[in-house]
Formats: sequence, C-alpha cells, structure tokens
Amino acid sequence: MKKILCILIFLNTFFLAAQGLERVEPPFWWSGMKHNTLQLMLYGKDIARNTPEMEGVTIKNVRKTENPNYLFVTVNTEDVPEGKYVLRLKRGKKEVSRYTYEFRKREEGSALRKGFDSSDVMYLIMPDRFANGDPDNDSSPEMTEKADRSKQGGRHGGDIQGITDHIDYIRELGATTVWSTPLLEDNDPEYSYHTYAQSDVYRIDPRYGTNEDYRRLADELHKNDMKLVMDYVTNHWGAEHWMIKDLPTYDWIHQFSDVDTSLLPERSLKVGYANSNYRMETQYDPNASGIDRKYCVDGWFTSTMPDLNQSNPLVLNYLVQNAIWWIEYAGLDGFRVDTYSYNDKEAIAQWTKAIMDEYPYFNIVGEVWLHDQAQIAYWQKDSRIGALQDFNSNLPSVMDFTLHDAIGTVFNEDEATWNEGITKVYGNFVNDFLYPDVNNLLVFAENHDTQRLNHIYNKDLQKYKMAMAVVATVRGIPQLYYGSEIGMVGNKDKGDGDIRRDFPGGWKGDDNNAFTAAGRTAEQKEYFDFTSKLFRWRKDTPVIHKGKTKHYLPENNVYVYFRYNDKDTVMVVVNNSNEDQTLKTERLKESIGRFAKGKEVISGKNISLGEMTIAPKTVWIMELE
Amino acid sequence: MKKILCILIFLNTFFLAAQGLERVEPPFWWSGMKHNTLQLMLYGKDIARNTPEMEGVTIKNVRKTENPNYLFVTVNTEDVPEGKYVLRLKRGKKEVSRYTYEFRKREEGSALRKGFDSSDVMYLIMPDRFANGDPDNDSSPEMTEKADRSKQGGRHGGDIQGITDHIDYIRELGATTVWSTPLLEDNDPEYSYHTYAQSDVYRIDPRYGTNEDYRRLADELHKNDMKLVMDYVTNHWGAEHWMIKDLPTYDWIHQFSDVDTSLLPERSLKVGYANSNYRMETQYDPNASGIDRKYCVDGWFTSTMPDLNQSNPLVLNYLVQNAIWWIEYAGLDGFRVDTYSYNDKEAIAQWTKAIMDEYPYFNIVGEVWLHDQAQIAYWQKDSRIGALQDFNSNLPSVMDFTLHDAIGTVFNEDEATWNEGITKVYGNFVNDFLYPDVNNLLVFAENHDTQRLNHIYNKDLQKYKMAMAVVATVRGIPQLYYGSEIGMVGNKDKGDGDIRRDFPGGWKGDDNNAFTAAGRTAEQKEYFDFTSKLFRWRKDTPVIHKGKTKHYLPENNVYVYFRYNDKDTVMVVVNNSNEDQTLKTERLKESIGRFAKGKEVISGKNISLGEMTIAPKTVWIMELE
Repeated sequence: MKKILCILIFLNTFFLAAQGLERVEPPFWWSGMKHNTLQLMLYGKDIARNTPEMEGVTIKNVRKTENPNYLFVTVNTEDVPEGKYVLRLKRGKKEVSRYTYEFRKREEGSALRKGFDSSDVMYLIMPDRFANGDPDNDSSPEMTEKADRSKQGGRHGGDIQGITDHIDYIRELGATTVWSTPLLEDNDPEYSYHTYAQSDVYRIDPRYGTNEDYRRLADELHKNDMKLVMDYVTNHWGAEHWMIKDLPTYDWIHQFSDVDTSLLPERSLKVGYANSNYRMETQYDPNASGIDRKYCVDGWFTSTMPDLNQSNPLVLNYLVQNAIWWIEYAGLDGFRVDTYSYNDKEAIAQWTKAIMDEYPYFNIVGEVWLHDQAQIAYWQKDSRIGALQDFNSNLPSVMDFTLHDAIGTVFNEDEATWNEGITKVYGNFVNDFLYPDVNNLLVFAENHDTQRLNHIYNKDLQKYKMAMAVVATVRGIPQLYYGSEIGMVGNKDKGDGDIRRDFPGGWKGDDNNAFTAAGRTAEQKEYFDFTSKLFRWRKDTPVIHKGKTKHYLPENNVYVYFRYNDKDTVMVVVNNSNEDQTLKTERLKESIGRFAKGKEVISGKNISLGEMTIAPKTVWIMELE
Repeated sequence: MKKILCILIFLNTFFLAAQGLERVEPPFWWSGMKHNTLQLMLYGKDIARNTPEMEGVTIKNVRKTENPNYLFVTVNTEDVPEGKYVLRLKRGKKEVSRYTYEFRKREEGSALRKGFDSSDVMYLIMPDRFANGDPDNDSSPEMTEKADRSKQGGRHGGDIQGITDHIDYIRELGATTVWSTPLLEDNDPEYSYHTYAQSDVYRIDPRYGTNEDYRRLADELHKNDMKLVMDYVTNHWGAEHWMIKDLPTYDWIHQFSDVDTSLLPERSLKVGYANSNYRMETQYDPNASGIDRKYCVDGWFTSTMPDLNQSNPLVLNYLVQNAIWWIEYAGLDGFRVDTYSYNDKEAIAQWTKAIMDEYPYFNIVGEVWLHDQAQIAYWQKDSRIGALQDFNSNLPSVMDFTLHDAIGTVFNEDEATWNEGITKVYGNFVNDFLYPDVNNLLVFAENHDTQRLNHIYNKDLQKYKMAMAVVATVRGIPQLYYGSEIGMVGNKDKGDGDIRRDFPGGWKGDDNNAFTAAGRTAEQKEYFDFTSKLFRWRKDTPVIHKGKTKHYLPENNVYVYFRYNDKDTVMVVVNNSNEDQTLKTERLKESIGRFAKGKEVISGKNISLGEMTIAPKTVWIMELE
C-alpha cells in the first residue's frame, strides 16, 4: 500500500512537471488594442491533453496541432481591462499548470504613433560592429558563439548600450532615425553577429543586452526627437529556434519531402530542405512555372534558416502578434522588413495590413531588392502595377534599389554618353510615376549587404560628396550606412564581414576614436563635417522633405535639378565631368524664375544665377534667393 | 480704249492662272466611310481669295490660314453616293478654277479588313536595297538624287517591282507579311534611299514606281494570302516637301524662333530650328522640365526633317486622311509608324484612334524604341501604365525592344551568371503582365536601324539558329530583316548603309543570286533552309500564335519553355552553354504531363522526354506527342 502510494505520488509529480507551461507567447499584452482577439501560444510537454481556462477573459477557440506540446488559445480581448488574469491548464477538474497573464496599459498615443517619413534621415547600424557599450555581455553562457574580434565573421561585442552611448553622435550627424540590423536572439554557432537566423523572437540576444535595454534605447532616441526602426524578419528563423526544434506543425516551415536530407551540411536541420532560387520575379511573372515560384517562395535562404510558412494562419498570426508586441513594448517608429519579396506575397500583405490596421500612421519599409522600377513599384501599397494582378502589398515604403545601382557606378563615369555618366541618375527619376508614393521610397547609396561606397570610389571625397548630396536632396527618405560618414571602407568581395568593420572608437582601447571631433583624423573630419553639415541642413529644410522635383536632361555630364514648393526652391548641380562646366541658365529659367542668386549650403557662398561655372567633380546645393 | 481692253484681258488671264488649283488633297475619296466629313486641302496661288462650291456635296466649313495659297474646305461625306462632283472656286460669281472630285466605291470588306497579327511573320525590306525590278526607274528626271550603286548612302535602284517579283521567295521563307520601309516621294538631295524625309505623301517615289505599282504589290500579296504593311511617318516630313516650302501656317511645323538659323547647314530649311534631344522619357517623366519635353517632342530629327506639329488640327487631320487614303487606295493590312513616341503623345493617340475607328480590325505597330518594359507598355492600347497618367495611345501593337536587346548579346555569353547568359531572355518575359496584349508585340532580333544579327554573332550559324528559334516561338509577331536569312552581314559602326546592303541576286548581273535555291551558295542554303523550315512550320502551328507560355528558370545556361493550349504543346530548349546539357525532366513535369516524346521540327527526329541531353549551342523545338 505504501509502495502504491509512493508510485501514485511520483506519477502525480511527474504529470505536473510534464504538463507544465514552459512558454506562453506573447508573454503579456495590452488592453485597448484595435485587434479584438489574441492567440496565445502555450508550450509544454504534452500540454495539448489539458484544457485552458482564463478567469475574466473569454476563450473563443482552442486549437491543437499534431504536436501535443502546443496549444493555440484564442481569447477575446475586447473590453478586457488592464490587469492580471490567471490562465489555468486543467486535466479534468485538476489544475496542472497556471500562468498569470497581464494586460498592460498602453502608452498614450500609441495607436496613432507617427512612423519615420521623408523628413527623417535613417542611420543604419550593424550593432555587433558599432560600439561595445558593455564588454561584460560580449559572450553569454546561454549562447553558443563567443566573442572573437579576430574573426571577420565572428562576434565583436558591439551592443545596444553602444548605440545608446552614441545617440549624440548620430544626432550630430544629422540623422533622425536609427535602423539597427536585428537584435533578437540568434544562437547560431557561427555568423550569429548578423542575427538574421533568430532563435527566440521575444528576446533580445543577451550579447546585445536585454529587452529593457532595447526599450531604453527607444526612449533615449525619443527624448532626442529621434526614431527607432526594428529590422524584422518574417521570412525565416534560425535552425536553432526552439520552435523549429519542436515544430508545432509539419507545415510551420516549408519542407521538401523529396529532398535527401543526408546531403545537408552537418549541423543543419534534418528536415526536407531545398534552397531558394532567389528569383523574386516568379512572384508576378505570368509565365512562371509553379515549381520555380515554389522554390523562390518556399525554398530556404540557407540550410540553417528554415523558411517560415506564412500561409499557415498560425504562423502568420504568430508573426503579426510578435511584430505588434515589439512596437508596443519598445515604442518603435517603424520596421524594416528583411527579404520582403521572398515571402508568400498574399501572406506578407496580410501581415503588413494587420500591423498598419493597428497603427495607421506607422511606417514599414520592405527590402525589395529588384532592379526594375515596375517590379519595385509592384510592392508598394496601392500600386496600380500590383493591381494588374489584383495584388496590394499594403507596404507603405519600398527601397529605391535602381537609384542605388546608379549611384554605385556613375561617379566613376567621367564621360557622358547616351547611357553612361550622370544620366543614369537622371534616368532613375523618369519612372517616378510608377510609384504610388515617391516620398516613401528609401534612398540609399549602400547598406550592410552591398559594396561600400568608399570602396567603389576608392575614397575619392569629391565622389562621396556627389553621391551623398544626391541621397540627401532627392525625393524619399535618405538612409546612411554607419562608418561611411568618416570615410570607412570595406570590400564585399572579401566577404560580408569586410563591409561590416568595427567603427573606430567603439571599443575600449581603440587607437582612433571617430565618435568625437577631437578623436577624428583629418580625413575622417573632412568626411564627417561634410556629411553632418549636409544632413543637418536637410533636417530643417522642408522643401526637400515634401517638395516637388523638376530636373533637366544632363548635358556634358552635368545634372541640374530643383526641389521646390510654393515658398522655397533648392537647386542642385552635379558636375560629374572632369572639366569646368558653365551652365546654360537660359535653359533653366522655368525653375530659376525670379531668383537672382543661390546660397550654397555647404560652403555658404553666394552664387549668381546669371553665370555659373562649376568645377570638375563638384556638387552645389543652393537655396535660391 | 483698245489699250485698256488689252490690259483688262491681260489682268483676267493673270488672275485665272494665278488663282488656279494646283493641288487638291486627298485627290479623291470613297463613298460610305465611317468618318462623315472630309477636309479638302486646296492649294494654288492666292486661292484663299476665292469661294469654293461643290455641287451635290455640302460644304460645312471653309478655313483660311495666314497663307493665301491654301484653303481647307470641310465637306459632309455622309450619304454622298459614288460619283464625280464638280468643285468650283469662284471669285464673286465668276468661276476661276474647277476640279472634278471623285467619291469612289469601296472594296468589299474594306472597313472590316483584318490587320496582321500573331499568326503572321513579318519580313522587313529596304526597297532600294532588295531588288531592282525596273532598271528604267533607277533615276527620275523629277528627282534630284540619281542612282549610284557605288555610294553606301546612295540610291541603288531597288523598287516595288523588285518586291513584287520576289513574293514567291518571301512566301517560301515562311513570311506572310511584308513591311517595306517608306516608298513615298523623298526628294532629298542625298540619302533619299531611306525615304523617311518625304516630299509628297500622296505619291510613290518615281524611283520606286507608281501608286499603281504599290497597289499591285498589295494585290499580288493578297492573292498569296499575304499582307502588306506601310511604313508611315507622322513625325516629320523632308525639307523638300512642297508644303514645307510654302507653309500653310507658321505652326504647321515646330519652329524655334530663338534659334539662329544661320547656324544651320547650307541646304537646310531656313526656319527656326532645334534638334530633338531624343529623350522620349520626357513624355511621361513627372519630373521633366517643360523645355526638355518641348525639345524631345518639337525638336527635329535632323535639320532636313522638319518636325510636324500634330497638335495643329489641320496637320493632324491631314495626316489622318492621308493614312486612311493609303489604306483604302492600296488595300493595306497595317502600318508600322516611325518614331511613334517622338510625336506629341495626345495628338498621335488621336491619329491612331481615328484610323482604328475607321478600321477596327486593322493593326498598327509603333516604333517605341525604349529599353524598359513599363515604358514600352505605356504606349500600347489600353495600357494601365499609360492610365497612371490618363493616357491611352490607342496603338494596338508595340515593339519588344527589350527582347531585341537581350537577343543581341546573350548568345555570345557562354557562361551563365545571375544576370548573364540566356537568363536575359527569360527575364524579358517576366514582365509580360505589364503589357495589355502580349500577342500584339512585334518580336525581332534586328531591323534596318540596328546592328545586323549575323555581324553580332560573327556568322555563327548555331547562334543564328538559337536567335531565330526564339523569335519564331515566343509570344508576339515575329519580324525578320531581309537578307539575314541567307547569312547577310553588315556592321552599323561602318554606317547605316552597311546594314542595308543589296540583296544578292536583286540586280541584273549579280554573280550570286540568293533568291533561288540553285543560285545560293552552300552557306546561304544552310541559313535559308533553316529559316524557311522554321517559319513555314510556325505558319501552320496555331499554338505558337495564341498559346500560353510557361517557362523555367534557366539552369546551366539552358532555357526551357513551353507554348501550349488545350490541344497542343510545343517545348523549346535552348542550350546556350558550350557543353552538353542533360535536362532534369522531373522539374518540367507540370508542362510535360502525359507526353512521352517530342518531335523536333527542324531535324524531324523523335526525342524521348525521359532523358534529354542537348548538344552545346543548340536549340530544339519539339511538338510533344
């Protein structure tokens, strides 16, 4: 009898533990959200055998999957007041587990938050490579990969504190918005520094800091009238993601059952795997074969990044709630969405709409890395090109990759031919009518995946100035890439790590500290002073933010354009030739109008509009008076 | 008294002569046209002082211009029976001139004539360089430039009779439609052989033959179930045009009053002249300056080709009536419109609509020489890209210049990279959804203004075969360029004349006669036999004309695509690599379906679909069975 009792006690304890809640996601929520349901994902060994109850909150639906370790519980959040609610899991009448679920109070104005826009300047940071604010978290006992600054693709120790410490620097540069590449936990054993192979999307990677640190970064930026943009990854997670290791459903990710998994690299997930063909064109090509479309959308980015199946409503909803959770939790001002056009297009459009429905003035820019304007425009909200296929992405902002392509070659093209030289930049704006909203295009010369501008132009400051002047003064939202403003170089041909070098001064003991005026070399100062003057001027120049554009067909490799509104006119002249060029001002009279002179914003010089001769490889930005 | 009488008689005679009708255009018309008015242009010294009358026909409007030598008389043509009507010019009650105006009977079915379409194959001829059917007309006493075969840019003597004589050859080749470059009178003192600088648009140039000869050519083609397409020029006339020499209105052409005409070449027209900037993008660029747009549309092609002002309703109507006159007179099956996108876009859209209203099943292809599919698609009828700017060209057919661009390089690209090799051809079809009607795209590897295909590919027959197979089997209307089918070469870098060499056998005494099987060299035979077999097969293969397309992302520089409908499937394999390639047929199963083998249409060989290995630089076109 005693023996039987012991066994019974043992079994009971075993069940309690076994049926306990290991995770509840989202871990908490807010009262008063527009979406009136919330789907809680409960995780624990065999918890699907239990029944959930939640005092004071109506459970609308309980969904089980083929994996008994998951329960998806949809609750009604309409009119649920702030407070704590006990979520119980019961086996019959017996409670086997409980979790106190909190509905928090929203920040005032949360729903109507205004996202980044064309009055902003975005500064893109790779956090592992920017500044090491807290050397104590360079490695973490929980995380496999340890810091090793000697490795190009290793973790170098940069973190959130490093960004927070340098908000003044970023503000001084004239940037108003920080886009940091991902910061969520990425427990890949190598190359985790890029952090696009995430292993827990409700948690900041401990090597970058804590969730609280991230929220504090947003708060500090806001105190400086600046904004924070999160780099969100909907397309894939890392192979080390805890849910990938215990899939809720077979179709949580895209699997290829006919693929021999023994061919996969040693450490990759042993599920049916196929690589993406990366041909995003198949998303709209009317002639595309089904198999090419499938491999584009369903194929994996790499064997260590399982491709999420957003067409599964459980997955899609998980991603929507996670995204909203971060906006609400950290107080975000925008998303940059990674590999946007590799997602199932109908599903990602739903994801985007769900977020924009919750925050109608928010902004989201998608990485739509294409080289054809009709194709890029396809992906912008309310595109009439998308509408040719009854598609609306709901995505407010897309990236002007064709301008990037042009900026990345033209300043080395001294001779103007029909298609060579500065005409490529002019040519980019010809198709502006294809975009539903040109002011919501992200405009950039480089990012963390492209060749470094200062490498392309071999550190020719004049060419840098021309490129940056274009980025600063054309329609759209300019985006800078950390380090170029002090002349940093890096060659993508040597590996991605080379275009993601450590910012000088970000690490204790760095010989050179480019974060401070005193610490900069003469060359760094030249780069910084120009860039800072340019973008600080832009910040206070509304005609650049929303003004119209009028441009003139380049002559002799000289491009002239105007940004104007009823009040102000800015004239930009880019002489990309190797010779002095005298402008035919008669030709420009419809834009010059009543103005007599221009004040060049960098040099401060007055320039008469009557006769203008501009030096070789020079840019002028003039406020007309 | 006698003296006074003499003077009076003299004056009267003087006035009669001076006020006589020198021209009436159109010279005649037809009864029962859909358009119910006709604007007669009357020309003669000081005729504007007179009053027109027309027995049995209602004059709706008489329009005078600042030039007293013109009268524009609009008559009501509704219900005017066939017949002859006397048109009188009166001074007071006195008749000073008369003209018998004829309304002819229309050919049966004229209004519902069916234009060329994707079941056709178009053969492009430069008539001066194709065949000299009538050596007696090589020069004409009326025309300034005389024949001189020794000059690359001179007149060589080819003519309409030369085309008519070789209809059998063209039919044997598999072509169904002849597009001849212009044949109307061009009295330029040099380079008149290209005939785009016309001096009388109601008259075939006497060096090509007569209006009757042209009509006979159409008749002979029709007897062979073939079609005739006229190359129509709306954008400009030659400086030698009789109306240009006595402009009806100052604004009949685009003049640039602020230009110093003394700077013009010796023989050019001394009117205010400026050259076009040729930047057609300004037609839709929302950022374009007014001056750039003006110089594109209003600027002249060259100083000897005055740019017509189609925005002047008199000009537009003149061009509409002239075009309709030729359709009705010669029995045309289509127009190719030169420099379509240099015309004022609203005006050319009206011109096009007027013709299509009269002949709803006619076809017109516009030369829209752009390198961006959205921009080309802008110009096709009912384009939703054009609709972004509330523009509808009404133009049924546009030219697939981006495919031309791809075909002109890819077969020299043996290595496939992301963007190099046959993927460029695949990439062209990705954007097919931008076009309102892909079956009405003109598909071509070359024309009279581009580099010769056999020059680009250095007479590599295998490359020629791949290029032609693509042209023959993709969606749209294939267009060939005379001579390439027998291996003709020519290098545009040596001048336009070099890509417009004389067809061997077109001139009496030619050593080599490639028009006949017996006369061809072994090499010419290889080219001709392939081309002829290919296009004759196409003619009888409806699935190519209107079938759907499904294509597969190229692998290893091999492109596979299918044309299919409910009944038939054609599979095309282009191996552009330098190695044998074995296809992964498993990947193609959605297209191969139930089929077991393919019959290759050129070799006649059967190919099992189970295992396919294709030789280097080879194309297969297979009817699946």
